[in-house]
Amino acid sequence: MTWTVYLSGEIHSDWRDEIARGSMTAGLAVIFTRPVTHHEASDDVGVALLGSEPDKFWHDHKGAQINAIRTRSLIEKADIVVVRFGEKYRQWNAAFDAGFAAALGKPLIVMHQDEHAHALKEVDAAALAVTSSPEQVVAILRYVIDGDLPGYTDKAASR
Amino acid sequence: MTWTVYLSGEIHSDWRDEIARGSMTAGLAVIFTRPVTHHEASDDVGVALLGSEPDKFWHDHKGAQINAIRTRSLIEKADIVVVRFGEKYRQWNAAFDAGFAAALGKPLIVMHQDEHAHALKEVDAAALAVTSSPEQVVAILRYVIDGDLPGYTDKAASR
Amino acid sequence: MTWTVYLSGEIHSDWRDEIARGSMTAGLAVIFTRPVTHHEASDDVGVALLGSEPDKFWHDHKGAQINAIRTRSLIEKADIVVVRFGEKYRQWNAAFDAGFAAALGKPLIVMHQDEHAHALKEVDAAALAVTSSPEQVVAILRYVIDGDLPGYTDKAASR
Amino acid sequence: MTWTVYLSGEIHSDWRDEIARGSMTAGLAVIFTRPVTHHEASDDVGVALLGSEPDKFWHDHKGAQINAIRTRSLIEKADIVVVRFGEKYRQWNAAFDAGFAAALGKPLIVMHQDEHAHALKEVDAAALAVTSSPEQVVAILRYVIDGDLPGYTDKAASR
Amino acid sequence: MTWTVYLSGEIHSDWRDEIARGSMTAGLAVIFTRPVTHHEASDDVGVALLGSEPDKFWHDHKGAQINAIRTRSLIEKADIVVVRFGEKYRQWNAAFDAGFAAALGKPLIVMHQDEHAHALKEVDAAALAVTSSPEQVVAILRYVIDGDLPGYTDKAASR
Amino acid sequence: MTWTVYLSGEIHSDWRDEIARGSMTAGLAVIFTRPVTHHEASDDVGVALLGSEPDKFWHDHKGAQINAIRTRSLIEKADIVVVRFGEKYRQWNAAFDAGFAAALGKPLIVMHQDEHAHALKEVDAAALAVTSSPEQVVAILRYVIDGDLPGYTDKAASR
Amino acid sequence: MTWTVYLSGEIHSDWRDEIARGSMTAGLAVIFTRPVTHHEASDDVGVALLGSEPDKFWHDHKGAQINAIRTRSLIEKADIVVVRFGEKYRQWNAAFDAGFAAALGKPLIVMHQDEHAHALKEVDAAALAVTSSPEQVVAILRYVIDGDLPGYTDKAASR
Amino acid sequence: MTWTVYLSGEIHSDWRDEIARGSMTAGLAVIFTRPVTHHEASDDVGVALLGSEPDKFWHDHKGAQINAIRTRSLIEKADIVVVRFGEKYRQWNAAFDAGFAAALGKPLIVMHQDEHAHALKEVDAAALAVTSSPEQVVAILRYVIDGDLPGYTDKAASR
Repeated sequence: MTWTVYLSGEIHSDWRDEIARGSMTAGLAVIFTRPVTHHEASDDVGVALLGSEPDKFWHDHKGAQINAIRTRSLIEKADIVVVRFGEKYRQWNAAFDAGFAAALGKPLIVMHQDEHAHALKEVDAAALAVTSSPEQVVAILRYVIDGDLPGYTDKAASR
Repeated sequence: MTWTVYLSGEIHSDWRDEIARGSMTAGLAVIFTRPVTHHEASDDVGVALLGSEPDKFWHDHKGAQINAIRTRSLIEKADIVVVRFGEKYRQWNAAFDAGFAAALGKPLIVMHQDEHAHALKEVDAAALAVTSSPEQVVAILRYVIDGDLPGYTDKAASR
Repeated sequence: MTWTVYLSGEIHSDWRDEIARGSMTAGLAVIFTRPVTHHEASDDVGVALLGSEPDKFWHDHKGAQINAIRTRSLIEKADIVVVRFGEKYRQWNAAFDAGFAAALGKPLIVMHQDEHAHALKEVDAAALAVTSSPEQVVAILRYVIDGDLPGYTDKAASR
Repeated sequence: MTWTVYLSGEIHSDWRDEIARGSMTAGLAVIFTRPVTHHEASDDVGVALLGSEPDKFWHDHKGAQINAIRTRSLIEKADIVVVRFGEKYRQWNAAFDAGFAAALGKPLIVMHQDEHAHALKEVDAAALAVTSSPEQVVAILRYVIDGDLPGYTDKAASR
Repeated sequence: MTWTVYLSGEIHSDWRDEIARGSMTAGLAVIFTRPVTHHEASDDVGVALLGSEPDKFWHDHKGAQINAIRTRSLIEKADIVVVRFGEKYRQWNAAFDAGFAAALGKPLIVMHQDEHAHALKEVDAAALAVTSSPEQVVAILRYVIDGDLPGYTDKAASR
Repeated sequence: MTWTVYLSGEIHSDWRDEIARGSMTAGLAVIFTRPVTHHEASDDVGVALLGSEPDKFWHDHKGAQINAIRTRSLIEKADIVVVRFGEKYRQWNAAFDAGFAAALGKPLIVMHQDEHAHALKEVDAAALAVTSSPEQVVAILRYVIDGDLPGYTDKAASR
Repeated sequence: MTWTVYLSGEIHSDWRDEIARGSMTAGLAVIFTRPVTHHEASDDVGVALLGSEPDKFWHDHKGAQINAIRTRSLIEKADIVVVRFGEKYRQWNAAFDAGFAAALGKPLIVMHQDEHAHALKEVDAAALAVTSSPEQVVAILRYVIDGDLPGYTDKAASR
Repeated sequence: MTWTVYLSGEIHSDWRDEIARGSMTAGLAVIFTRPVTHHEASDDVGVALLGSEPDKFWHDHKGAQINAIRTRSLIEKADIVVVRFGEKYRQWNAAFDAGFAAALGKPLIVMHQDEHAHALKEVDAAALAVTSSPEQVVAILRYVIDGDLPGYTDKAASR
C-alpha cells in the first residue's frame, strides 16, 4: 500500500526535498506531491499562458486559479497533508490549504517554529501533529506508514 | 427564507456590527453568526474552563479547540461565509476558515485592503466576491438575498 | 411540510409568476426561488457594487460570480429544480444549472418547446419530467406535493 | 501519479486529438477520456441497440441515456474536466456537463472563442481557466501536472 | 423535535392510517409522508399531465418518473423509512425503496407477514426492525421518539 | 482504464457468463463482479460458518448479512450496475440492489422480459437502459466502454 | 439559532439533567437529546415489542437495533455530541457513539474521571474538549453558544 | 480485484497473524492493515518523536493523535473492518474504531467471546457478522472474496 503525502506551504527552503530524501532512506512507500514551488512561475502562470492583464489583481487571479487546479486536486488525492509555515511572509495560502484539508477530513501535520505557535493555535488545533523540522515529519511518516519507532520497535519483532 | 451568514476574521474593528446594522436597515432576512470576538476570552477559554496549563502551547490548544466547536459548527450551518483580513497580525485563522469554507463548497466573500491583494491571491481565487468595506458586503447581500440593485431594480418591477 | 422549488432559466417571459400564481390558487405549500431576473442588474451587478472594469470579460466575471452566490445557494436548498429554455439566446446558464442540479441529485423538471427537443436530449434525459408550459409544471407540483390528479383523486378519498 | 482529464463538448473538430498529441509530445502522465464523438452513433445508439421508436422524443431519450452511462462515469472519474464550446449549434450538453462537473467540485477548464464570452459568463465564472485553443490547454496541463512553465522553469531547477 | 417518517410500499390496505392514528393517540411529534396511494392516479399521472403515449412502456415511464419526484424527495427528507410488503403483487418498488433508503443510511423498519420472511431476507438484513403489524410500528415509534415502553417506563420516572 | 460492472439479480440461468464471454470476445477492458450465485451456499452461509440457528428467521438473517458484506462492497466499487429480473420468484433482493445502486448514483442497466415491464416501472424509471438479453448488455458495454456501435463506428474512424 | 446537543453514555447518574438544568439557568437556546436511559427498557425493548427470543443473543440484538434507530438519528441531527464515561461497566456503546460522531465530523466533548484518561486516550484525542463534570460542559456550552466566559465577557461589551 | 481489510482492536494475542496466514493459505487476494501493535511504541510515540511532556495527559494525547493519522487513514481505505475485543482491558479504542467504521458505512465484522455479548450488544448490532475466532473470520473472507463455502461450493461449479 502506497501512501500519498501533500507538502504545502513555505517555498523558500528545501524542506520538501529533505522529507523526500529522509523517506527514501527509510524505504517508505510514499509519493510526495507539492505545489509548483518556482515563485515567479507560480505568480505569472496565468498571464504567461492566457494573456497579459494590465490590472495586477486579474494578473494574480488568473495565476492563482491555475495553481488551484493543481493544489486542490493534489490535496484531495492525498492521504496526509503536511503544511509548513516559514519565518517570513504572511503565508495565507498555507493556512488556507490547512483549512481546506481539515474540512476534507485529511490528517494534518503542521510544521513551524515555536515563535509562531500562538498565532497558529487554531491551525495547530486542527492538526494531528505539530512539528518543527523535516526530520520529525519523516519520523512520523516512518511510524505511521511502517510502524517503526527507533528505540522501541527495533528491539523486538513488533508486528 | 432566512439566510445565515458567518462573519469570520479580524476582531479589532466593528465591521461585523456595521454589516449587521446595514442589513437590518435594508430589511434583509439574514442571521449573522460570528466567532467569539472578545480577544482575551478567546485566548483563555480553555484554561479558564478546564484548568490551567503551565505550558503555553497547551494553554492555547485547549482554547483553540473549544473555539473550534463554535466556529466549525457555525461555518457548516452558514449559507455564505464572509472573511475579513485586517491590517495587522498574521490572521492565519481567517485564512484557515476561508479554506475550510471553500472545501465545504460555501460561497465565500473576502474583505481586505488593496495592499494585501497579492498575498491573498489564493484566497481571493476561491472567493465569489472580493470586497474592501462592510458597505460592499451589505450591498452584495441585498442583491443576493433580495435581488435589489440600486439604480437598476428600483427603476422597475424586476420580480 | 413546505417544499422549495427553484425556477431557473429564461427570464424574458413571466412563466415564473404563472407557476407561482397557479400554485397559490391550488393552495400548495411551496416556496419558489429564482435567480435575479432583471437582465441589466444581473449583467452589471459586479461592477455596480465592486468597481468598474475596462475589460468586458472581467465586467462579466465579477457579475457572474455574485450571481453564483445566489443561484448555487438556492439550487442547493431546493427540493425540486425547474429549468425553462426559451425561444431565443443560447441559454448556457440554464443548461449549466440543469447539470449542476443533476449532479446534486435534485429532481429536475425541464420546460421547453418541441423544436428544441433534439438539442436538449441530454438535458431531458437527466430530467424526471419534460414539460412545455407553466400549467404542466403546476399540475406536476400539485400531484407531487399534494397527491392531487384531476379526474382521478377528486373522484374518491385517495389518501 | 497519472492524471485523468475528460474532454467534453464540441465534436466537429479534432481539438481532442490536438490536446492528446500535445500532451504526448510533452510527456505528460495523463489519460484523456471523451464522450462518443461519432455524431450519428451518438444520436442513434438507443434505437440501434434497444429497438426502434416511432416517436423521435423517445428515440433521442434512449440514446441520450446510454450516452449518459459513459459521460457521467467518466466525469466522475476525472481529475480535471475540459469543456469546449464550438462555433455552431446550441451545445446545451456541453454546458450541462460543465454544471455537472462544477457541482462535483471538479476543476473546470473552459475553451471557447471570444464572441461567446458574454453568453458563457456563468460557465466561465465556475471555471479555473478560460482558454481559446488546444495549445493553451496543453500548456496548462504541462504546468498543472509537471510544473513546467516555459521561460520560467526551464531556466532553473524549479523543484 | 419533530420526526419525519416515510411510509413506503403496499397501497391496498389502510395500514398508513392505522399508524398515523396510533401515533396521534400516543401524542407523538411525528409527520408521516407517503407516496401517492391512489393506484390509477399513480399509474396514469404521466400521460394525464404530459400527453398520452401509444406505447405502454413510455406510458409507465412518464408516470413512474413523476412519482419518483415525490418518493425520492420524501425518502431523503425522512428520519425513518417504513416499508410494508403486502400479500399480493411483486412489489418491486417497495424493495427498491428499501434499497434506496438503506444506501442513504436511513433507519429502516420493514413490515411483512412471516411467509415472506425467506424471500425478504436481504431486505430484513438491512433493517433495524422487522415487524408484522401497524401496532408494532407505532410501539417502536413511541419508544424511539418518546422513550416510552409500556410495562417499563410507565413504572418509573425514566428520564 | 478498466471498468467494473456488478451483475445483480437472477441466479438460475447463465446470463452472467454470457455477458462475460461476449465482453471478452469484444475485447472490453471490464471486470465483472457478482453475488455468490450458489443458491444453497448463499442461503446457509451464516449457519455454516457461525453456528446453527433453530429459528429460520435468524438462520436467514445471519446468511443475508454475510452476503451483504460482499454485495454492498461490490456495488460501491462498481462503475455500472446491471440487475436482471428472471421469470420466477419475487426477487426482492434484485430490486433492493437496484434501489441501493440508484441512491449511490451508479448508472443502472435493467434486464427483464416484457411481461414484467409494468410491475418494474419504478425500477426501469431509475435505469439508464432497459434491456431484455445479455447480448444487449454486451452491446451497450461495447458502446459505453469502447465507443463501438456496429453499422456506425465501423464505417469510419470515429475517434 | 437553536443548538442541538446529544448526551451519550453513562446512564446511572443524573448528569444529563444537571447539564439541562444548568443550561436552562444560563438561558441557552439548546435542545438536549439522549438515548433511552431506562436500563431495563433499553435491554428488553426488542422482545417486548417484537416477540420473545429464547437465545439471549437475539434478545439483545433486537433491542440494540431498535435503540440504534433512536441513537443514530439523534447523533446525526446533533450539532455537538457529549459522551460521558462513568466509573463502572465497560461502556463500549459510549465509545462506539464517540467513534460514530467523530466519523461524521461532529464536535465531540468527552466527560470522564482522571483515572480513565489513559484508557480513553484515543477517544480524548478525537475530542475538542475533555471534561470531568456537568458544570464544565455547561460552561463550555455557554461559551460556544452565547460567547459568555465569566470573568471576561461580563466585564465588557464583548460583542 | 484485491480487497483491503483493517484489523482493529486487541493487541496482546497473534490473532491478526492467524487471519493473515489462514487467508494466504486460502489464496485470497487480500491486504491486511492494522494499527501499530507494539504497545509501548504506541503509548510513547508522541513524546518520543515530538518531545517529552511532564503531564501524562498530553503525553498520551500526542501519541494518540499520531496513532490516529494511521488508524483513521487505514479505516477509510478499508473495504472491510474487523474489530476484536479481548478478555482484558476496557478497549475503548476498539469500540471507537467500530463506531467510526460504522458511520463510514464500512462492513463490520466483530470478534469476541460469548461472555462479552451483552456488553457489546450495540456494537454487535452494527456488525454484519459476529465471530469468536480467527478461523471464522478467514472462512467469512473466503466466502465474501472468493465465494467459497466448504461443503457447498466445492461440490459443484458454483460460478
